[in-house]
This record gives sequence, C-alpha cells and structure tokens, in this order.
Amino acid sequence: MWSKSSDAFLACEATFEAAKIILFGAPFDSTTSYRPGSRFGSAAIRRESYGIETYSPYQNRDLTECAVLDCGDLELPFGDPSAALSVIETQTRTIWDAEKIPFMLGGEHLVTLGAFRAVAEKYPDVAIFHLDAHADLREDYLGVPLSHASVIRRCWEIVGDGRIFQFGIRSGDREEFRWGKEHVQTRMFDLQGWEETLEKWGEKPIYLTLDLDVLDPSIFPGTGTPEPGGVRFEDLRRVVTGICQNARVVGCDVTELSPPYDVSGVSTMVACKIVREMLLALGHEG
Amino acid sequence: MWSKSSDAFLACEATFEAAKIILFGAPFDSTTSYRPGSRFGSAAIRRESYGIETYSPYQNRDLTECAVLDCGDLELPFGDPSAALSVIETQTRTIWDAEKIPFMLGGEHLVTLGAFRAVAEKYPDVAIFHLDAHADLREDYLGVPLSHASVIRRCWEIVGDGRIFQFGIRSGDREEFRWGKEHVQTRMFDLQGWEETLEKWGEKPIYLTLDLDVLDPSIFPGTGTPEPGGVRFEDLRRVVTGICQNARVVGCDVTELSPPYDVSGVSTMVACKIVREMLLALGHEG
Amino acid sequence: MWSKSSDAFLACEATFEAAKIILFGAPFDSTTSYRPGSRFGSAAIRRESYGIETYSPYQNRDLTECAVLDCGDLELPFGDPSAALSVIETQTRTIWDAEKIPFMLGGEHLVTLGAFRAVAEKYPDVAIFHLDAHADLREDYLGVPLSHASVIRRCWEIVGDGRIFQFGIRSGDREEFRWGKEHVQTRMFDLQGWEETLEKWGEKPIYLTLDLDVLDPSIFPGTGTPEPGGVRFEDLRRVVTGICQNARVVGCDVTELSPPYDVSGVSTMVACKIVREMLLALGHEG
Amino acid sequence: MWSKSSDAFLACEATFEAAKIILFGAPFDSTTSYRPGSRFGSAAIRRESYGIETYSPYQNRDLTECAVLDCGDLELPFGDPSAALSVIETQTRTIWDAEKIPFMLGGEHLVTLGAFRAVAEKYPDVAIFHLDAHADLREDYLGVPLSHASVIRRCWEIVGDGRIFQFGIRSGDREEFRWGKEHVQTRMFDLQGWEETLEKWGEKPIYLTLDLDVLDPSIFPGTGTPEPGGVRFEDLRRVVTGICQNARVVGCDVTELSPPYDVSGVSTMVACKIVREMLLALGHEG
Amino acid sequence: MWSKSSDAFLACEATFEAAKIILFGAPFDSTTSYRPGSRFGSAAIRRESYGIETYSPYQNRDLTECAVLDCGDLELPFGDPSAALSVIETQTRTIWDAEKIPFMLGGEHLVTLGAFRAVAEKYPDVAIFHLDAHADLREDYLGVPLSHASVIRRCWEIVGDGRIFQFGIRSGDREEFRWGKEHVQTRMFDLQGWEETLEKWGEKPIYLTLDLDVLDPSIFPGTGTPEPGGVRFEDLRRVVTGICQNARVVGCDVTELSPPYDVSGVSTMVACKIVREMLLALGHEG
Amino acid sequence: MWSKSSDAFLACEATFEAAKIILFGAPFDSTTSYRPGSRFGSAAIRRESYGIETYSPYQNRDLTECAVLDCGDLELPFGDPSAALSVIETQTRTIWDAEKIPFMLGGEHLVTLGAFRAVAEKYPDVAIFHLDAHADLREDYLGVPLSHASVIRRCWEIVGDGRIFQFGIRSGDREEFRWGKEHVQTRMFDLQGWEETLEKWGEKPIYLTLDLDVLDPSIFPGTGTPEPGGVRFEDLRRVVTGICQNARVVGCDVTELSPPYDVSGVSTMVACKIVREMLLALGHEG
Repeated sequence: MWSKSSDAFLACEATFEAAKIILFGAPFDSTTSYRPGSRFGSAAIRRESYGIETYSPYQNRDLTECAVLDCGDLELPFGDPSAALSVIETQTRTIWDAEKIPFMLGGEHLVTLGAFRAVAEKYPDVAIFHLDAHADLREDYLGVPLSHASVIRRCWEIVGDGRIFQFGIRSGDREEFRWGKEHVQTRMFDLQGWEETLEKWGEKPIYLTLDLDVLDPSIFPGTGTPEPGGVRFEDLRRVVTGICQNARVVGCDVTELSPPYDVSGVSTMVACKIVREMLLALGHEG
Repeated sequence: MWSKSSDAFLACEATFEAAKIILFGAPFDSTTSYRPGSRFGSAAIRRESYGIETYSPYQNRDLTECAVLDCGDLELPFGDPSAALSVIETQTRTIWDAEKIPFMLGGEHLVTLGAFRAVAEKYPDVAIFHLDAHADLREDYLGVPLSHASVIRRCWEIVGDGRIFQFGIRSGDREEFRWGKEHVQTRMFDLQGWEETLEKWGEKPIYLTLDLDVLDPSIFPGTGTPEPGGVRFEDLRRVVTGICQNARVVGCDVTELSPPYDVSGVSTMVACKIVREMLLALGHEG
Repeated sequence: MWSKSSDAFLACEATFEAAKIILFGAPFDSTTSYRPGSRFGSAAIRRESYGIETYSPYQNRDLTECAVLDCGDLELPFGDPSAALSVIETQTRTIWDAEKIPFMLGGEHLVTLGAFRAVAEKYPDVAIFHLDAHADLREDYLGVPLSHASVIRRCWEIVGDGRIFQFGIRSGDREEFRWGKEHVQTRMFDLQGWEETLEKWGEKPIYLTLDLDVLDPSIFPGTGTPEPGGVRFEDLRRVVTGICQNARVVGCDVTELSPPYDVSGVSTMVACKIVREMLLALGHEG
Repeated sequence: MWSKSSDAFLACEATFEAAKIILFGAPFDSTTSYRPGSRFGSAAIRRESYGIETYSPYQNRDLTECAVLDCGDLELPFGDPSAALSVIETQTRTIWDAEKIPFMLGGEHLVTLGAFRAVAEKYPDVAIFHLDAHADLREDYLGVPLSHASVIRRCWEIVGDGRIFQFGIRSGDREEFRWGKEHVQTRMFDLQGWEETLEKWGEKPIYLTLDLDVLDPSIFPGTGTPEPGGVRFEDLRRVVTGICQNARVVGCDVTELSPPYDVSGVSTMVACKIVREMLLALGHEG
Repeated sequence: MWSKSSDAFLACEATFEAAKIILFGAPFDSTTSYRPGSRFGSAAIRRESYGIETYSPYQNRDLTECAVLDCGDLELPFGDPSAALSVIETQTRTIWDAEKIPFMLGGEHLVTLGAFRAVAEKYPDVAIFHLDAHADLREDYLGVPLSHASVIRRCWEIVGDGRIFQFGIRSGDREEFRWGKEHVQTRMFDLQGWEETLEKWGEKPIYLTLDLDVLDPSIFPGTGTPEPGGVRFEDLRRVVTGICQNARVVGCDVTELSPPYDVSGVSTMVACKIVREMLLALGHEG
Repeated sequence: MWSKSSDAFLACEATFEAAKIILFGAPFDSTTSYRPGSRFGSAAIRRESYGIETYSPYQNRDLTECAVLDCGDLELPFGDPSAALSVIETQTRTIWDAEKIPFMLGGEHLVTLGAFRAVAEKYPDVAIFHLDAHADLREDYLGVPLSHASVIRRCWEIVGDGRIFQFGIRSGDREEFRWGKEHVQTRMFDLQGWEETLEKWGEKPIYLTLDLDVLDPSIFPGTGTPEPGGVRFEDLRRVVTGICQNARVVGCDVTELSPPYDVSGVSTMVACKIVREMLLALGHEG
C-alpha cells in the first residue's frame, strides 16, 4: 500500500539467503588527519543512489537482476579505532561463513583493515589490489599505528612481500616510497599495468580496496585529502570493471567519500556509479 | 546481528496496529514559486532526527514510550499537483479508517490540501489552526488554483467561514488580506491569542497545519520563501505543544523545510525538534 | 546618463526587426525528478554573462556584430506542465512568424517539447540533434507523460523514426535503450560521428537541443541529474560550433543548468560560453 | 506579448518625471578590509526582491502605489575610490536637480560619502542619522583616508560637530570612541533614543545612512564585517519606518549587504524588506 | 621590515614570563558523534580574530593592555582520545607550574577532561561552571567512556557531588537527567541563577567550561550538535564576563566551534568575541 | 615543548641568510572586476599547505631540503593600488639586494606589476613568461590603468616588444588580440611551444608569472574570472616544473586563487601543489 522508498542501495534487496554479495557500510573516520566526514560516506551513497539508474549501458546489465543485499551501516564506536575494527572484522567473518562476498562502503580507509583481517584469515593466499592517491604505508601517524595513513602497511604485516599491488599513487613521504620499493609493487600516477598484474596473479584470490581519492579532485572533490593530478572517471570505471569481471575477487571496499566536502553532490554520484559498476561486474553469472 | 540504523524518524517504529499516530512524508514541491527543494524536507527530517534525543526535557516524555509509526514517504508524481493530492488524500483516508492520527511531513504547503480533504470528510466540523508567515489565501497564482499560495483558500472552500484561524501571518498581497478579513480569523505578526481561540473552539476537532516559515529566518533559513520578522523557536515550541496537548487534534502537518537552502543544517534540526515535541504532546496518555 | 547595465545576455540587444536570432528563457522545472532549480537557469546565464567577453578568439567574431535580441524570460505557471508548454509553443510560433531563429534557454529539458512543436509545424521535415547524458525516451515517468525523462519520446511522436540523432548518451533504463535501437540513432558515451550524420542529413532543417548534463560533472556540476563520465568542454564547444556553422539550424535550446547546485559558479560560466559560441556560429554571415 | 520580468526593484518603474524617489545602486567595495563582495549587494537586492510582496501589512501600503524609479547600478571603477565617489556625487546631484529623493543601495559604506557630499551641498543644515555596528570614525585605515572605516569621519569634516547621530554602535577602536565623544552623539549597542533625537532635530533635513550590519548576524550574516550582539529585525524595521515617516529625509542609503557571504539568501531578503518599508514610508502622501 | 601578520589570537603576544593567561588550542574531535570538524575550531578562532577589534566597548578595555600569550595548537593524535587527553593534561600542568591561567580552545568538549585533570590536581576544591546545551552526563556513549557526551560525568568522578553547576542545558537522555538530579546542580534552558551560585561558592576556585552550543543555533550554527532553543549572544556575553570578572577562575575553555559547518563565518566571529571578552575580564587588574 | 604549528608554507622556514628563495604574500584584490576574494589567496595557500606532503614523487625531492623562507603577507592598503604596488616593489627590491629569488603569492594579478618593476630594474634584459587564461593587455579597464586586466600591458611598457611570451590565453577583447599580435608572442588555448621558446631565450633571465585561471575551472573553480576550456593540472605541473628547472628564473609569482569561491577546497590544494613543485624545481642544486 505504502510506496515508502527503501533505504538500501539501488535495488540491493535480495534476501540474505539468495544474496551473492553483501553490501554494508562502515561509518568511521576518527583517524582522519585532515578533513573528517567520511563517516557519512556510506549513508550518502545509499541515499543518493536513486539519482542513477539500475541499468548500466556500459555492461548491459541491470542491478535488479543481481543478487545483492544491502545490510545497512554497522554501528561503530567513534574514537576507538581498535574496537571499530573488531566489529568490522566480526561482521565480515559472518559474511564469509555464509559464503558470500563482502562489499564494504567506508568511512575512512582504515576500515579496510577490519575487513581484510577476516578475508586474509579465510584466504591466506589473497593479494591486495590497492587503488589510491596515497601510499598509506607509514609505520604510524603521529605515533598512532591504526591510522588511515598506515592501513596498507598494517595489511602488509598480514600478507608480507609481493602480495600488494598499488596503482595511481601520487603522494607520500620519502620514507614510504623507499620502504614501498622493497615490499610492494607500486604503479605511480596512473592505473596502467593492471591487466598484466592481474594476468600474472591468475586464479588466486584478490581483495580490491579502492580509495576514491585516486580520482582527480576535479571529478571527486568530496574527500578528506584531495590530491590534484589523479585519474579520470572513465579510467577508473574501466579498471574496476575489468578487475571485478576478470579476477577472483573475494572481497572489496570503496572508501573516503566525505559528503560534507561534496558541496555539489557530484562526488557522491561518482561513488554511486562506481559501486553500481562493481556490483554488476561482480554479480554477473559466467 | 546487524546494527543497521532504521530510516524511520526517531524511534517511530510501532506496529501499524499498535500505532496511535501515523507519520508520513509528502515529498512534493512542483508549485513552489520562489526556491524549490521542499520535496527533500521529509527525508531530511527523518534522516537527521538521530542528531537529537528521543527524550524531551520540556515535557519529560520519551518517544520510545509513544505509539508512533513512520511509514516513510509517499511516491508522488512531480509536475501533476492534482494527481499528487489524490494520492495524499487516499492515504490519509486509510489512516483514518484505522482510527489513527495522520501526521504529514511536507513538501510544500499545497500538500495540506490532500490530507485536509480526507480529514474534513470524516470530521465535517473540523477547524484549521494555521501557523504561517504567508496568508496563502490567493484565488490562484499565475492562473493556477492548486498552488502553495492558495492552499488555505482551497481549504476554506471546503469548510467555509469561521473555521480557519491563522497565526503569525506577515506577508500577502492586499487582496488576500481584504478577503481574509471577511472569511478567516488572522493574528498578524505573532502567535498571541491561540489559547483564547482554542478555548472558544472547545472540544471540537482541529487540524493543525504548520508552515515552518512562520519562524524567523534567523533560526529557519532553509525554506522556499523566507520572510524576515518571524517568531522565535521558543514561541513556536510552546504554541504547538500547547495545541497538541490541549486540543482535540485529528490531523496535522509540518511543511516547507527546503534542505537545499539549509546550508548549516540548523533548519532541519529545528524541524526535527518541533516534530518530536508535537508527537510527544499528541502521543501522551492523558 | 545612467550607466545602468542591461539585463540582456551579453550585447544581445538588437531591435526585434533587425534581429536574426531571438533568445528567450523558459524558467520551468516542475517535472524535475531529482534536484530542482533549473528554473533559475536562464536568469543566471543572462546575469553572469558579463563575466565573459563578447569576443570569441575561437571564431574571431564578436557578439556586438551579431543581430541577436534577448527577450527575457517567459512567465510560466509552476505545477502545470501542459499550460507551460503551450505558452512556449505560442511564443516560438511568434518568432517563426517573424522569420527569426528561436534560441531557448531552460529550464528543465521538458521545455524543448514546447518549442519543438512550433518548429516541427513549420518544418515538417526537421530532424533533432540531441546532445545529452540521458536518453529521455521513457514512455512516462511515474505515470506522467510530460516529463523531462520523456521529452525526446514525445518529440518522436511528432516526427517518427529516423529523424532523431542522439549523442553522448550514457544513462537510461533498459527499456529506453531497447526502444531507442528501433526508433532513433544513438551515439553512446561521446559525441563522435556528428559530422557524418550532419553530412548525410544535408540541407534539411535541424533543431539542436542541448542538455548541458552531456558534459562531465567535473566541469558542469550545476545540474539536476549529474552523470559522471561525460564529455569535455572542448569536445562540446567544437561540436555545437560545428553544427551551428555548417547545418541549417532552424531552432535550438540549451537546458538543465541548475544554479542552486552550481556552488562555484563555474557551470553557469560554461553555459554562458557555450551560448556565446552558438550565437556567434549561428549569427555569422556566410 | 513577452512576459519578460523587469530588472527593477519591486514595482519601482515610475517614469523619471513622475518619480518622487530615485533608487540606484553603487556597486563598489574596493576598500573593504575583511570580506569583500558588497559590490554585488544592489544587484542582489533588485533581483531577489520578487521573493517578497509589493504590499506591506505593517504599513498597509503597496509599492505599486508609490512613485519610485529604480535607475539601476552606476558603473564605478574598481580600485579607484576617489573616482568612484565622484561618479556617485555627480549622479546624486542630478537627482537633486530634478527635486527627487536619492535612495542609494551599496556597495560598501564608503559610497555614502559620494551621495552625502551632494546632499550637504544642497542642504547645508542636514544631519546624519547613522545606524551601524561600527563607529566608522577612524582618521584613516592603514593610511588610506577614503575607507569604509572612516566614512563617517569624512562626513563629519563636511558638517562638523553636533550633526551626526549614531545608533547601534558596538565596535571600534579606543581612539574612535574617544574622538566620537567630543564630536558626535553615539547610542551604544541598541537603537533607543531615536525618537527623542528626531524630535529635537525637528523639521530640519536628515540624511539616513543604514549599514545593515547594525543587525545581529543571526539574521544578517551576509555582510563584510559581521559583529555579534546586534539589533533584531523588528527593532530596525520600526526605527527606519519611524524615521522615514516622521522626519524630513532628503536622502538615504542602505549598504553592506555582501551576497557571497549570504549563503542561505536570508540577508538579501532582509535587505529587500527593509528597503521596501523605507520606500513605502518615504513615498506616502501625508 | 616585513609586515607579516602574526598567527596569534588578537594581540595575545606577551612573553611567556610576562603572561598572566596562556591561550592554547586542543584540535581534537575524534569522539564527535554527529558532525565532526571542531578540530579546526581553535585555528579558525585565531585566524579570524583580526575581523574584530582588540578594544571592547562593553568593558572599556583593550587586549593590547592585557598580558596574554597564545601558544598555538597542541599536536594531538587523532583516533586516540586517551593519549590526546594526556598531552593536554601535561601541558596544562606546565602552565600551572608557571602560575598562569590556562585558557584552552577546543576541539570537541572531551578536551576539557585533560585540562580539568591538571587543574583539579592543583586545586582539589575547584568547582566546575558548565555552560552547555547538552548535559554530557552519560556513563558512556556506545560503550566508549571517553566521549564528548560523557565528559562532565568523567569530571564528576574527580570532584564528586555538589561541585558541578550546569547552565543552559536543554538536551540529554532521561537517564542523564535522573542521574544529574542527584549529583549536580542543573539550570535548565537558560543561564539564570549564575550570580546566586557564584555568590554561594565565594572565593573558592572555579573552572569555567563553555560549550558554545549553549547558544541558539540562529547565532551559532557552526557546531557539531546544534540544538534549537538556546540562549542569545548578549545573555552569554554578560554571564561569561560576569563570571570571569567576579569569580576566582583558575582555568577555562571554550569548545565545539566546528568551522566546516560555519558557512557564513558568523559562528567563528561569535567565538572570537566571546574569547576576547573573557580574556579582557580575566586579565584586568583589580 | 609546545608543538605549535608554524604558519609558514610547508617547511619554508630557513633563516633569511640561508634562504635562496623568499616566499611572500601580496593580499590585494581591489581592482578585481568580477568576483573579489583573491586577497585571501596567499593565506589560504600557506594554511592548507599542511594537507600535502613536503616530498614530491614527481621530482624525488623534499622541501625540507630546500632553502626557502616564507616571510608571510605584506600589509597592503585596500583601495589604493598605486600605494600597494609601491610596497610590493620596495619589498621585492630588498629581496634582490640580498641576492635571493622573490616568489610572490597573490592576490589578484595586478600585484605582478610591483614585483616586476623591481626585477626589471635589476635585470633590464628580463623576459616574462606569462601563463594565463586572459591576455591582460588592455590599455585600461573602465578608465583605470592599474587593473588586473591591464597588468601585462603595464609590464610591456617597461620591457617593450619581443620580451613577453604568453601561453594558454583563451579570453580577451578583439582589441587586445589585435594589439598583442604586434607586441607580444601569444600561444592560444594551450601551453605548447614553451620548450622552443625557452631554448631560444637561452640563459637570459626570466620572470615567470602564473595566473592560476589558466587551468580549466573543473580543477580550479576558486578564482575571480573562471574561463572554461583551460589546461589540465598535469599540463601545468609539467610546464612550470620545466621552466623552473631549465631556465634562469629570477623571480616568479602565482596569483588569482580566490578562496571564497573555492567551496570544496580543491583549488587551494592545486595552488599548494603547484607552489611546492615550483619551489622544489627552483631550489635544487645543479
């Protein structure tokens, strides 16, 4: 009777049983060092998703035909990163127990660590494809090890050398780059080489973590640490679609939309469209 | 397991059966003549309501103890006022059939007409308490009779003379005021006299329609037609609480929050708090 | 004596008799489904036009040397699309009766229908060149046939198959694209192929309708339904200049600037510059 | 035929001959020391005036019945205060030659000096009623004598002691207040005492200069130097209406609206309403 | 030679030795539950302070004559409230060791706990005067004890019953108010009674903590949790001036300005003016 | 002890003696004709510079290893362009007397004239490399010769024909381009040809003046006169790095960031990053 609109992301209302992918939000930004607000990211993506279509002319697929459930946002304690990561880890494990793919919406980039801990436990041979403007390889940030600026370093502590592939990186301190040269593979400034890397990695599992600030701030100003000189929307769309279609993605996340800085609303639409394309590419049969 | 937050207004999640009050949104603003955007009003009120408490120290009551159900937003066709009003009217009738109080969130002020048609059918002796900066008594606006600037005139066509009581009015054209003198009771500039009017009206039913622009734009800038010189928050809070507690309110609405113009978010918080106080006052057990 | 600045678009102050092109605004947005505000588009274009020069180094022409009259905005009834379209149609006919080219500034894209009805009556063999992010081919939108999302479908009902050429389309539902394949020619994602299409069409009349959201939202965020992945300013500038110079354009419009969402003012400047280039290209003598 | 809207302030379209009051804008802000933008003030007041009614329920009068002509904005050279003031002075003299009342819209407060020079030439016994948050009595500002912070001091150099009456002042440096005690009459913090002052001044001519920042920034944030602790809208409305109705006002101005800082648009509406009330009070036939 | 402007708050550039009051910033907001951004508060207050005068006509005093040193902002680790509070506590102790008054600028309200711990150690008989919209008396917030919503409860754990005096409180949950009735003295809704309380407390030391959201959001929208129905600027100015002049204030803070939500800049000016008045009142010599 | 953050640009805290480059701000915008606010540009660049790293992966250099001193902003009299230019000229001369490179941050583009006068006195054979959207070659603007729209014409009066090389120009009036053809070398629309020009110029001194509006407004909206169709960030980064590394740059400036129009903060980050890259390229040894 009531035509009440759902609060799920675009048509992502499968039953838990039927769902192949579980979408959920991790609204946390307590370690953001420059401009906070990414805590509102997942809610904004969900809410504004009705501004785009469920159908993608790029892939000729429709979200109404995919088995995705949007479970909403986790309730995370502000000011306690360790506890927040535990909640995320636990929930991700639940999704894995049910044999579904976790798709997390940030929040700041630190939230990746919670999800990745659970994924790496289940898939010890997993690799990380990391799309970002920032290397995120610091040992710590102002003495704090659980920081958005250290998240990939923390992930490295789990998987070790040769398992992290970075693309689009254009910012970091000298030490991060020095350290990175020895421990991770980094493509500077653009996203080139992803296909070769993917091919080499083959059938082994991949966790895809996307910090949306890899995009140029002309198209994605609404983020905590905008870094000029980034990639274009079309570049990113093609790469994430390619990875999601061609690799064995066992988990992924999209982070760092900060709605208070998205004054025109365009950054949120960008996030919505990227998430839609990833879901469609992940959710296709065969 | 999932701590997903509800998309209902603050704790308004009673079952339909148990609910005494049914809250719903009417996201429509197609006739707005100056600055559109009130279509986003009800959703913003719902979403930002978690920024205030469920408990009111003014009334020493808590929304968690009230039987209210928020049914979400109606789906209304933009650009077709007549069809939109029909949808509202039909839904309001459903609420009445179930012997509950309809509480509508706008949307522009025209939506009142849809709800009031249903209410007046059930309660032919109903009066309107109308709090607003604008008289809304035009015969038509640029030839269009179904306009936010004519809504109270349209309501008068249903109930006739002596049944409409306006408060806070400070804008209109000369003709509206001339016509109004003969057909409605108008308190100019402030809200005084509401208690006397209420007392005279006695036990008979009342429909309360609140255009939030009755508030001074210093506290409520986020509206389509801001009019300086309005009443203060405390004045309005006291009056709506008083009416909801002491009169036989059989329906009500709160309209004209326009989030795109609420750049600081304060107007939305004002709307949330006024709605909370009204719900608490209506929902108490006497 | 008084140096009062005109409220016409940049130097467009020819007499009606002398004017070759008549510029006018259609401030209407009642059917906008996502973010309203395009009603303010034409006024903003006019007002901010003094921020650019009358001279174009691209074409080495100056608006002071073109015969254009800006007649200002039409007065359109909000909330009544049918009546609004009638006003637009009537006014366009007046322009045609005087053998001048109508150049309309939106407003939402639905206004095209009013102008096109008049144009198609005079030029039954006219084709539409349609630059847009959205296909606009829906049968209706939430049951409303006169909608910005259906405007090209309504135009098709006038001219039939083989007469509508779309460019830059990157959004729509599955059904629109399916239907479109049989009835219109659609270039997806970019503007390529316009020269070939133009050549084939030859000397026959063309109506050019430009929904500015064909541009990427990085350069044009100020619109009702921003869709990432669009064309660049330079691409659009070249194409509209090319069409206006080389085709027999008998009418045109530029729609969907929504100033409330143009927080930096850049979208408005984009619209001003595109309009200037189109006027210069249309207004040149041989 | 064309329903083109005027760019004059609300209904102020009398012929020059018939007009009793001449409204004009002085878009200049080159000496603003904190936040520039008042150059856009007069245009914004004019443009947004259609958001209020021509009829005032406070005075039961209508602007359509007053003989006012809005001549638009002067063209003033940015960066050359001396030349700008000359243009203003010359134009004000033209108005006086035609025996009409000049009503200037700023711009920054310095523009008052240009108009006042002309007025004081014609009415050597004129007094200034000055409503403002700031004393504006500095000898100079960073060595510049023609500054918005010195404008009343410059006016004093024309009229001397005992002819300047300030109200609402709540900011200045120690020296300004010391100097002011000896040369002008200053009412601190609020507007009280205006009636007594007016009565004493009697039938002699008055120039009324209103810096809108006398208002509290809660209701008037859109100004170059917001100063908390100001007067309320109702206080100001009553005082300016009272002065305009009861004194022999031979010239007046309203300054310091800075639209770029008026994010919600409310400050502009405040300015529009104050200007309307002043025009109605000045324009009535006793 | 260089006229480089200082980055200290208005004229607060005494030497450490000469200074009676030490101003410093605590840029931390990791536990903010609704809208983050107060981390930028102290920097904004400092930066924008040049928009007001050093002289106060309210007190007839000038900051250039007071012995205040602004030491700038502390460097606090985001995401680690416990460590941040330790840094604040240590620095406050340093100030006390030098026999100066610490004056802290937030940041979120939690920072008070760091400073108060140091103060209470030195002055075991200190009382807290707490001006705020929110009771801040929760046992914890989502399980986190170090939260802005619990800060006064944490302070109570240090000083116990009868030593906390709250004013202006208008929001909290039912449990906070129930608990508060037994342990603290709370003046609801306004600031009345402060003089009596002060008189009773006599010569004993006082720590004054001001959460600026005690102000009505019409004048102070730029804060994390705006709560309509607050006190006016003039009320607050009078009370804080009165306390600082008449009580033995041994430490104080001003918190919860959130510049990202202060779109018009007015909230920052309010904070600047309140801080100036407090400094002038604290810094006067008998 | 205190961790007070500096107000210098990123790590630019060499002693005056040790510094090779002197950075300073010229906060002036009194002649801006369209949207003022560039007076806040240098302060914003300095303040927000902590949002980027001191290390550049593009050049593999770190600002902590360069000898740069940021002297802060000059104090310039608003409304008196002539006096302001004198202050700038005098200060630039001081820098030259000490044999250091002046690096000025605007402010509007007119400030270039002050610095260039001093540079041209010392290096009579200096050439100007001018990156801009606008030709800035007008004889005067509304009769004012010292205008941002005439600044390069004024510089030409010092150096004469064949010494000014413009890049990226895409706006001007017909007369400017006509005049320019005879007196300066202008590359329209993009930055191509800079290497050839540089090579021809050889070892002779160069003054580099960068008006940031040469960038496309998609990436740089925060400027006074945004002009669509500009160059990309990467294009500009490469060119300015190339010039600073390979030419004998004896002075430079970066102008026209207008923070009030930089709503997302991205334009300021762009300016910060361009300044960092220029400093690193200028500051390298051999």
